[in-house]
Amino acid sequence: MQRITVNVPATTANLGPGFDCLGLALDWWNTITVERARKFAVSLRGDSQGLPADETNMVVEHIRIFFHHIGAPMPTLRVTMTNRIPIGKGFGSSAAAMVGGLIAGNALAGTPLSAQEILELANEIEGHPDNVSAAIFGGFTISASEGQRVVCATIEPAPNWRAVVYIPEHALSTKTARKILPEKISRADAIFNIGRAALLAYAFTTQRAGFLQIATQDRLHQPYRVPLVKGMSEMLDAACGAGACGAALSGAGPSLIAFATSNAQATRVRAAFSETARKLKLNGAAKILKLSARGAYVTHQ
Amino acid sequence: MQRITVNVPATTANLGPGFDCLGLALDWWNTITVERARKFAVSLRGDSQGLPADETNMVVEHIRIFFHHIGAPMPTLRVTMTNRIPIGKGFGSSAAAMVGGLIAGNALAGTPLSAQEILELANEIEGHPDNVSAAIFGGFTISASEGQRVVCATIEPAPNWRAVVYIPEHALSTKTARKILPEKISRADAIFNIGRAALLAYAFTTQRAGFLQIATQDRLHQPYRVPLVKGMSEMLDAACGAGACGAALSGAGPSLIAFATSNAQATRVRAAFSETARKLKLNGAAKILKLSARGAYVTHQ
Repeated sequence: MQRITVNVPATTANLGPGFDCLGLALDWWNTITVERARKFAVSLRGDSQGLPADETNMVVEHIRIFFHHIGAPMPTLRVTMTNRIPIGKGFGSSAAAMVGGLIAGNALAGTPLSAQEILELANEIEGHPDNVSAAIFGGFTISASEGQRVVCATIEPAPNWRAVVYIPEHALSTKTARKILPEKISRADAIFNIGRAALLAYAFTTQRAGFLQIATQDRLHQPYRVPLVKGMSEMLDAACGAGACGAALSGAGPSLIAFATSNAQATRVRAAFSETARKLKLNGAAKILKLSARGAYVTHQ
Repeated sequence: MQRITVNVPATTANLGPGFDCLGLALDWWNTITVERARKFAVSLRGDSQGLPADETNMVVEHIRIFFHHIGAPMPTLRVTMTNRIPIGKGFGSSAAAMVGGLIAGNALAGTPLSAQEILELANEIEGHPDNVSAAIFGGFTISASEGQRVVCATIEPAPNWRAVVYIPEHALSTKTARKILPEKISRADAIFNIGRAALLAYAFTTQRAGFLQIATQDRLHQPYRVPLVKGMSEMLDAACGAGACGAALSGAGPSLIAFATSNAQATRVRAAFSETARKLKLNGAAKILKLSARGAYVTHQ
């Protein structure tokens, strides 16, 4: 085993009502190549602005955490990363770095841990399983924690469904986006989300896009995050007005995600995002992505 | 159309995490026969203790509400009811009376309303759609309200799954059981239920009973209702200890429901309920029920 490459997908979490529970892998990948070397080195490629190329790099940190976890010394490595998932935009860049590092460590060590064990380790570090579940297993994931244990159901998404995303230029830290949320909510708001999250699970499992409109509504985090995401309501309305099956904040934002069931529909939704952004004088990019049934995987060279 | 009989099933709601959202029809039926007559009369059969045999009878009231809703005079009727669903025990007896009355009225009037319209009318009266959805459509139902509109997904349950119920002798009014619940809950508790409700929808849709154990856990109502339901925790533990796939309060209680995937397993769970009830000196009955893919239906004679 000379060189190991870990491919890890972008993920979108919450998906409207599924705060900290629901996740979805997107066909948009970071790659991390590790090889044993005489001297430690980190090379960054792609959209890696602001990422440290040293021991404090999050991928490297999680390779170290992995070896500490299994009680083995971390080998000296040359790490090469190609970063495509934008940082702080709501597509699970931290989860990708974390899961990528843990899986790289696991592959280097001869795969002592199962994917389920990697999930439970990642959940312990991250504090919530939504993005890490989708990054590890792929597809649409429903996760529930019970102490250290994480139960995760994985659903293969409909092959024709598309995610249309709008990615604002400015990042939003998850910490800031979390701090704004109240600790207590009304029972009525909880019920609102419970029914919709169950409908969303049903919609993905049975590939019934007709349920997505109501099933992507949320009262647990989106209403509080409106002030943090310029133009959020107008952009979500524009996507739905252009025929999107449902639309929501991606993760903690600031990006938005809308669903379509064909490329033609997705193209119309992307145009609506771009058009509305121009009217609102927002800077950002709209993009169509396939959903990924596959989660992180390792290739050996 | 001389005589119309409406058959309406018992329903269990909440099902653990799905407060006011999730419902399930059981193979346990009330029947309501209506026929035009010279003189108004109500006859009660079955477990009808305490039910009024006059204009204030809930079924009769909802026949009247139906005719008022469509703006037509209510005909003079002879109403015969066979009541099997116990009252105030957590199996949707009110929803059955309500749905039964509305559907009887609809059948008498020549079916001017669709099942969806009956659902929205029943939801408006009841205030939450969980039991009425399951009573109307059958199966496992996920409901979400949006103003007057109710979106309901219906899932046909696995034919081999069984509900094992324990029905205490004493009733518990839904009003009392609701009054004890706090208006505000923690975000953590909401997340707990959101993930589990999505898992429950997934478990029923894909018939994967292995998920039921975690997917029937709840933090929105069960913990608060422990003081109202004697022996609740011990009985639920006993059911799970005997191999039930998951167990919860049925509706607002006081009955309990556990799931099994075979008659043999259901028989063991029923025995555990009876045994534990005897130890705890509880008076009540344990019963095995099939799940019903069918909702309320009308026969003409």
